[in-house]
Amino acid sequence: MTDKALVGVERAKALHELHGWTEAKGRDAITKTYQFKSFSQAWGFMSRVALFAEKTDHHPEWTNVYGRVEVTLTTHSAGGVTEKDVALAKKMELLANS
Amino acid sequence: MTDKALVGVERAKALHELHGWTEAKGRDAITKTYQFKSFSQAWGFMSRVALFAEKTDHHPEWTNVYGRVEVTLTTHSAGGVTEKDVALAKKMELLANS
Repeated sequence: MTDKALVGVERAKALHELHGWTEAKGRDAITKTYQFKSFSQAWGFMSRVALFAEKTDHHPEWTNVYGRVEVTLTTHSAGGVTEKDVALAKKMELLANS
Repeated sequence: MTDKALVGVERAKALHELHGWTEAKGRDAITKTYQFKSFSQAWGFMSRVALFAEKTDHHPEWTNVYGRVEVTLTTHSAGGVTEKDVALAKKMELLANS
């Protein structure tokens, strides 16, 4: 997986394949808000994401308020969105729907 | 523990006893930012707080970016800071320093 920032068609394609993910406002990043029914469910999701993030050494920026989890992904070393962010977003989609 | 919002001297006293906690800007809440050396340490802290929060049915609003954890506490049902927030803040202090 390269650390090169995705741009143009490549980026549009990657984002298109990620359900509900959008460009973050005011910065080079992608974002999505997940809504769960309880803190327990939100925390379960976050815990599974945390293990994946630590394993791949690529971590999300996220805010949790009870059942809500707002996530922003970017790769600081690349100054933008890379394949690492796309992989993390895909993993979150899988975990949120399982 | 009552759900009554703390005001005046009572509130100032409670905040004074909480190291590094301050009034949140623009809302009736208290806030503190914890900085850990790694995501693993930050996540360990958050996990222990999460268990306490679920047990007491009073949850934080928090944002995590790698080793940083920004916490905001308020009691929505009371429209302000209550003893529940003070208890949660005290627990966080204990866990952050252990």
